[in-house]
Amino acid sequence: MGFSTLWRRGNISGLYVITTESPQRSHIDIAKASIEAGVSFIQYRDKNASTRKLFETALKLREITRKARTKLIINDRVDIALAVKADGVHLGQDDMPLEHARDILGDRYIIGISTSCLEEAVEAEHGGADYIGLGPIYPTPSKDDAGSPIGIEGLMAARESVDIPIVAIGGLTADNIEQVVSAGSDGIAVISAVASALDMAEASRRLNALIERAKRPLI
Amino acid sequence: MGFSTLWRRGNISGLYVITTESPQRSHIDIAKASIEAGVSFIQYRDKNASTRKLFETALKLREITRKARTKLIINDRVDIALAVKADGVHLGQDDMPLEHARDILGDRYIIGISTSCLEEAVEAEHGGADYIGLGPIYPTPSKDDAGSPIGIEGLMAARESVDIPIVAIGGLTADNIEQVVSAGSDGIAVISAVASALDMAEASRRLNALIERAKRPLI
Repeated sequence: MGFSTLWRRGNISGLYVITTESPQRSHIDIAKASIEAGVSFIQYRDKNASTRKLFETALKLREITRKARTKLIINDRVDIALAVKADGVHLGQDDMPLEHARDILGDRYIIGISTSCLEEAVEAEHGGADYIGLGPIYPTPSKDDAGSPIGIEGLMAARESVDIPIVAIGGLTADNIEQVVSAGSDGIAVISAVASALDMAEASRRLNALIERAKRPLI
Repeated sequence: MGFSTLWRRGNISGLYVITTESPQRSHIDIAKASIEAGVSFIQYRDKNASTRKLFETALKLREITRKARTKLIINDRVDIALAVKADGVHLGQDDMPLEHARDILGDRYIIGISTSCLEEAVEAEHGGADYIGLGPIYPTPSKDDAGSPIGIEGLMAARESVDIPIVAIGGLTADNIEQVVSAGSDGIAVISAVASALDMAEASRRLNALIERAKRPLI
């Protein structure tokens, strides 16, 4: 992947908030609070909605993220990403294969791949992914299909093996973010740490500050 | 829509088989029997599968339909249609809006729109649909979200109002196909009339023959 392509797709790091709807909070609510707190990435993830609903919500998210210059990533759905001109897609191992998504999306869209082990991480990099989601790092209640935690050791092994950005996921909270960043993660993906917080914007700001602090070089 | 575009997308008429998986019969089984019987269109419809599963099945369907020169239409998913280079998509009122699907797919893909009344039919034509699915004509057990039947009268009213091909759907069987074609339907869409038949290829052939006979001009 050339420098110019990397440049166009932007730097993938910082706080990466995945939306998850609850009776109390909509995808839009979570995105608004995250944007207010200055998060770098919002991933819109909804495995149950109709295509029309996905489209309508993604369109609203595109409006508010564009104004804020927050990157908008669509989970799973290449068609929705194209329809609303999102910044990219995030693909799990049950989603469209990377090479076909790249064929459709071209080089201007970010493509991230969910990986749960070193082998998948290396394969995603070779396949032309722009970043990998890696996890779960710790046990997590947010995704019931997540596998066994790979731990800080798994993250460090992946960091040794791939050059593209790593966005760690799974059980990440204010209590462990610093060690995850120190172990080599570029981005920190959270679901419940924001969506379930009493004050979502405050939680996002705090996580963001912890990431910034962990990235500061030790002098 | 110009003549050349119509020509590229082909003539939309004849038997249109919508796949529906059961424990006994896969989407591929239904498609193979339909192809053997010479159906014009196969619509791959699966509202439950993961994107990966949709992609893999659609890819197999693309292989067998291409050899047979049967048109392959993908229900709902513009991304899957692009990934496997299907002939088109079929969009319901809960799927991606027509104008956005056309923006993504361009003029080389067929886009059909599900309509259940005159107003939707006219709107789909104005929006640039290549055909409309219209129904349910009769009561049907295959789609539990289908509305009230519009009857032969509803079909005739739509035929008066739109110029694009009409593919009738809903409760169509060997017993009523001839009157549906006589009322102005170009295509006949079936789900259970093929998928639930003892001999699917034989059922398809019989339905095909009835459509041909109904289309023959009375001399």
